[in-house]
Amino acid sequence: MTKKITDFSKLAVHTMTTKPWDLRQCVENFSAAGICGITIWRNVLEGQNLREARVMLNDYDMQVVSIARGGFFPSVQKEKRQTAVDDNLWAIEQSAAMGAPVLVLVSGADPAQSLEKSREQIQESILQILPQAQKAGVKLAIEPLHPMYAGDRSAINTLEQANNMVEEINSEFVGVAVDVYHLWWDPNLQREIIRCGRNGKLFAFHVCDWNVPSKDFLNDRGLMGDGCINIPQIRGWVEETGFSGYNEVEIFSDKYWAMDQNMYLEKIKNAYLKFT
Amino acid sequence: MTKKITDFSKLAVHTMTTKPWDLRQCVENFSAAGICGITIWRNVLEGQNLREARVMLNDYDMQVVSIARGGFFPSVQKEKRQTAVDDNLWAIEQSAAMGAPVLVLVSGADPAQSLEKSREQIQESILQILPQAQKAGVKLAIEPLHPMYAGDRSAINTLEQANNMVEEINSEFVGVAVDVYHLWWDPNLQREIIRCGRNGKLFAFHVCDWNVPSKDFLNDRGLMGDGCINIPQIRGWVEETGFSGYNEVEIFSDKYWAMDQNMYLEKIKNAYLKFT
Repeated sequence: MTKKITDFSKLAVHTMTTKPWDLRQCVENFSAAGICGITIWRNVLEGQNLREARVMLNDYDMQVVSIARGGFFPSVQKEKRQTAVDDNLWAIEQSAAMGAPVLVLVSGADPAQSLEKSREQIQESILQILPQAQKAGVKLAIEPLHPMYAGDRSAINTLEQANNMVEEINSEFVGVAVDVYHLWWDPNLQREIIRCGRNGKLFAFHVCDWNVPSKDFLNDRGLMGDGCINIPQIRGWVEETGFSGYNEVEIFSDKYWAMDQNMYLEKIKNAYLKFT
Repeated sequence: MTKKITDFSKLAVHTMTTKPWDLRQCVENFSAAGICGITIWRNVLEGQNLREARVMLNDYDMQVVSIARGGFFPSVQKEKRQTAVDDNLWAIEQSAAMGAPVLVLVSGADPAQSLEKSREQIQESILQILPQAQKAGVKLAIEPLHPMYAGDRSAINTLEQANNMVEEINSEFVGVAVDVYHLWWDPNLQREIIRCGRNGKLFAFHVCDWNVPSKDFLNDRGLMGDGCINIPQIRGWVEETGFSGYNEVEIFSDKYWAMDQNMYLEKIKNAYLKFT
């Protein structure tokens, strides 16, 4: 039986979850709400002085859990693949500057080539950026995305595929991010969580819910309890492997972005205690 | 290398593909276009005299490939499960009356219970209707649906899961339907096609395409060539197992339903020769 959550010490929220807020608003409001973990999306770092941002995060005792997101590696065009590698090198620098231990990778896919080819390119690109990640002390977390994103967002669609790649690369700096939204349906999920978790390769755990019916491919994720995912069960599997990191709330939702974000944060906290 | 398609002898079209047409319009227009295979969706049988419909199909030398669709078995409510079983018994009668060798099953799922529980109920219900199917000479094809339908349409989301259930039931009257839309992304697809195909359990093969980006969870399927699925590769795997049935074009598309359906039928024929 999964142990019930009774406090907010392991709660982290993604800046994208409260998309209407800029970085400062996220930090101030998360902190005021008693939330001490944050995953920073790179869009809120644009135009920021990273050193100042880091000072602000420290001032509020805000723990940076990860930076989201790098990746989007594959392309039939070699120049585009190089552009992606360069962008990921910059993302690693940003992560180090913000004190983030992990950079989350959304692998990418190019519909103009096979998924196998895209996966080869993903692996090649990760190997290219790995020395820089290692030097910066930033771990890379491959996040498998739901098969409905196989067209153009991720050629890695199951945790098994992510684990396979992680084992082939075989570096302590490359692991996986487990997001219940993408993986809840997979009959092999528990087996694969154990596989990466026991080897210390489970770097991040993301929660939200799957709305029934879902209305939008991108921005109709549910708050925990809104949908049909048995989140406590999956969290239990994750924790049984020894994972003791944050439970990161990552929700893209036109509905929730439209409401008052402080009221939304209260809803998130309630849902976190009740349904996570 | 997959053998190129050079004629329409193995082309079948689902009545739902040309949704604006009733059964008679489908039969007349398919026949005029040189298409001799049809899969009949049950909505076009509503209010039909089945004997007369059968005569019409014979008059046009139209081969009924399957009836779509039975299934939707699981529910937390026992009465609803019984209603589903009764409806499936009626679907078997309809299939027999139309001379259809196969009834396609969309398994169903109830978001109020686990996918494991739903799968148990699916298997129980199939076992309940199996004697009737056997008596009527109608085979049951379990169609795994894309994981994006795991919420409320199908707790069977990979061909591996469908094959597992088929092997457990172990009847010559229970096999699978392979639809490229649902399964193209699966890294284990070839292995699982071989698994069912070699045992004579591959009862139906459906084609369409995955649009990039996809805009609607239900009605934004692409015509072959519109999207990113390597259909010839998958057809090759299917045919290598000895499958010699129809290639069934099953497309739900608001876009194509809005156009002149005879012009659409010509587009389907072109796409069938070029991209299937």
